[in-house]
Amino acid sequence: MPDDLTPPALLDRLAGLLGPRGLLTAPADIAPYLSDWRALYTGRSPCVARPGTTAELAALVKLCAAARIPLVPVGGNTSMVGGATPDDSGRQVIVSLGRLNRIRDLDPLDMTMTCEAGVVVKAAQEAAIAAGCLFPLSFGGEGTATIGGVLSTNAGGNTTVRYGNARELMLGLEVVLPDGQVWNGLRRLRKDNTGYALRHLFVGAEGTLGFITAAVLRLFPPARESAVALCAVADEDAALALFRRCRDRDETAIRAFEYMSGTGVALYAKQIENGSVPIPGHAHYVLVDLASSRPDAGLRGLLEAVLEDAMTAGEVTDAVLAESEAQRAQLWRIREEHPEAQKREGASVKNDVSVPVSKTPELIRRASAACEALIPGIRPVPFGHMGDGNIHMNLQQPEDMPGAEFLARSHDIMDTVNAVVRELDGSFSAEHGIGRLKTDMMEAWRGGAELAVMQRIKAALDPAGLLNPGKVLP
Amino acid sequence: MPDDLTPPALLDRLAGLLGPRGLLTAPADIAPYLSDWRALYTGRSPCVARPGTTAELAALVKLCAAARIPLVPVGGNTSMVGGATPDDSGRQVIVSLGRLNRIRDLDPLDMTMTCEAGVVVKAAQEAAIAAGCLFPLSFGGEGTATIGGVLSTNAGGNTTVRYGNARELMLGLEVVLPDGQVWNGLRRLRKDNTGYALRHLFVGAEGTLGFITAAVLRLFPPARESAVALCAVADEDAALALFRRCRDRDETAIRAFEYMSGTGVALYAKQIENGSVPIPGHAHYVLVDLASSRPDAGLRGLLEAVLEDAMTAGEVTDAVLAESEAQRAQLWRIREEHPEAQKREGASVKNDVSVPVSKTPELIRRASAACEALIPGIRPVPFGHMGDGNIHMNLQQPEDMPGAEFLARSHDIMDTVNAVVRELDGSFSAEHGIGRLKTDMMEAWRGGAELAVMQRIKAALDPAGLLNPGKVLP
Repeated sequence: MPDDLTPPALLDRLAGLLGPRGLLTAPADIAPYLSDWRALYTGRSPCVARPGTTAELAALVKLCAAARIPLVPVGGNTSMVGGATPDDSGRQVIVSLGRLNRIRDLDPLDMTMTCEAGVVVKAAQEAAIAAGCLFPLSFGGEGTATIGGVLSTNAGGNTTVRYGNARELMLGLEVVLPDGQVWNGLRRLRKDNTGYALRHLFVGAEGTLGFITAAVLRLFPPARESAVALCAVADEDAALALFRRCRDRDETAIRAFEYMSGTGVALYAKQIENGSVPIPGHAHYVLVDLASSRPDAGLRGLLEAVLEDAMTAGEVTDAVLAESEAQRAQLWRIREEHPEAQKREGASVKNDVSVPVSKTPELIRRASAACEALIPGIRPVPFGHMGDGNIHMNLQQPEDMPGAEFLARSHDIMDTVNAVVRELDGSFSAEHGIGRLKTDMMEAWRGGAELAVMQRIKAALDPAGLLNPGKVLP
Repeated sequence: MPDDLTPPALLDRLAGLLGPRGLLTAPADIAPYLSDWRALYTGRSPCVARPGTTAELAALVKLCAAARIPLVPVGGNTSMVGGATPDDSGRQVIVSLGRLNRIRDLDPLDMTMTCEAGVVVKAAQEAAIAAGCLFPLSFGGEGTATIGGVLSTNAGGNTTVRYGNARELMLGLEVVLPDGQVWNGLRRLRKDNTGYALRHLFVGAEGTLGFITAAVLRLFPPARESAVALCAVADEDAALALFRRCRDRDETAIRAFEYMSGTGVALYAKQIENGSVPIPGHAHYVLVDLASSRPDAGLRGLLEAVLEDAMTAGEVTDAVLAESEAQRAQLWRIREEHPEAQKREGASVKNDVSVPVSKTPELIRRASAACEALIPGIRPVPFGHMGDGNIHMNLQQPEDMPGAEFLARSHDIMDTVNAVVRELDGSFSAEHGIGRLKTDMMEAWRGGAELAVMQRIKAALDPAGLLNPGKVLP
């Protein structure tokens, strides 16, 4: 180990390696990287390294491995769980992948696209559209989040019910390993059974096993027909029954199936400018979005038939179908502005949980009741991806309770929700990952053999523990 | 380590553990397990252990770990690469998962099924059908291969283009680890980002990292409409152009897209009883199979429109659409009997390779030409899953060459095909895995950082190297 890599010498070496654009050392430049998107954590760091190529990153990792300098990778810094924020030691070097932002290749015949880690998700979507294709990953942070970040966290989103998580959209990876070696696994093969599926190990590892620097992503034909409806449903079971009806008709057509509570929809109407709701006043809603690459799929007729059956069965009590693209966007806005409406209404506690799809009604009912018993007047605002069993089981402060007092109960609330999730064989982190926020839950939920294997893998790949320390594993 | 576990004592201990049904020691009972399906290898073993429960298997693994006895897991013993055959040492204990054959759960609302490892694929399909669902994994060996085997090898098959490989059909696993601990990861969640994706590590590991004892599998709505056509196409490029036409119309409708050479189709007509071909005499064929869960999908019209366009463009020169279920089966038989027709015709060399979908025409052309240059008169019989880029690039002996002489050139032929595959950024094992047959290729194809990481993972999970030694890793 070179012993001259105390911070000033380290910074000189890094500056020499990365050039003037490649290293931020001014406090004002570093500041945005020191806290996370939700402002849950603030750490310290001597610098932000911004390699411009995979080779530069590899050299940086080698240098820091030799000096035993811990590294914290960051993409768009939109983690919901503090996954990209350094600790308080001041020793952890932040490594931004933002300059690795080329789309290296896009092949409409293979239906693949090779993106570097720093490509913003929205830019990837737009490149696909320009080539007559669809890159389907879509979620609130898509304008900021990067390909490296969504793969490292196995991001989900609105279209997972149809296209899968980020993992399912990935065919190959390029990774800088903890010792600075580069693994070129950028294969664009649909079938390749040649040893262990390393690519699946790095996806979802949140940068603790290596730096994802590029990926081969799957593309799809674009939607040429769609049908979107906002439905008022009788209760949580009716919402699930409607999902089943859609799935039985054509499971491939369901692009999104989003549950919303009456409370959340009312908050939208109250807090968001022009937040009109065409069918207000109901206790439960579902946003159904059907789409097909067939221009003659007849999805409107299909959706009308499903809704008619569901109304006859008493499951759907009212519904409105989008008659235009503008109306479609308006209906989607109700769902997309849920986080903003909650924020404006005051303090809230977020829970990104999942259960088997069949148990989503029970999750919503039981978790809401348990939280109401814990804090009278609390306002459950469950919403999200019912078709994936992934409900954002959020809780809004009681109207008459100060926000700070409510937030002081955050852990009690999360524990209450998670106790229900656990009884329903669910997960305490559906699509956001572990980061720093949930490491202390790993032992209770994934302890024993599972956590032991994870720790052995971490030790095998990163024996010095230098990659994103303090994240994922307790 | 107990030092009394020399073979006789070992057998006593195993018999005590597993009971009379649980241990085969008579040579006649062991014999079927000592060689592989293709008869490439024959090994030796003191016994076949047949645990009846996961707990029994765990106890067995603990016992053998303590005694440093290597274990070879076997399911239906249909490996194409000798993945389940013991070596010649006589020390390796065969562990059959065949008695772990319960379907523990099937939930048509969740669309999941929990199968033990020994459930035969066909039995899983039938259980799904009985519940009004579809388990889509389908391939030649489905009547013998088991769920544990298809997951351990990440099996592909005919419907991969639509539903993915075995990996994509799996949501959760139960695994007995090399130290005998049981990991219960039988989660049936669509989203669960809680640490490393261990389930994906065991899938495709061919039993070298642990024993898969049960799995949660995904189900789908059954097909309610289908349209199948056998098409004569102008050349390999025309075959791919037809695939693109189908995909652009409705990528979700393509259940299978199988290329066949004129040579292979002629061999079928010659060798198989009642092997009639409705449109004989062409150089290239494609079998298109469209299906949808919509009873009103209009697939016949869609397929007719695609074929009309393709005929106008000169890509399709003749075609026949199945008019009945019987005719559908008859067309599929041409494809399914390819291996049998090849076998009856004499000696052949099989290559299970893949390339990016866009490069399949080039693969077929160049690999055929290279083999013809190597052995004049050799008959290329490429066929298979063009929609996945996975072509079985098989070679039939020249008519005037003795089979043994031809087979003596097997390695030359495989090397010739693989050289082309490599230039096209392909894989030397698309869906069959590595087993024993291809371990010596791992260094050349996956060497360097990739193989080093695999070996570190193997050492981390199975430090004594007792699980399926000599498979996958060189």
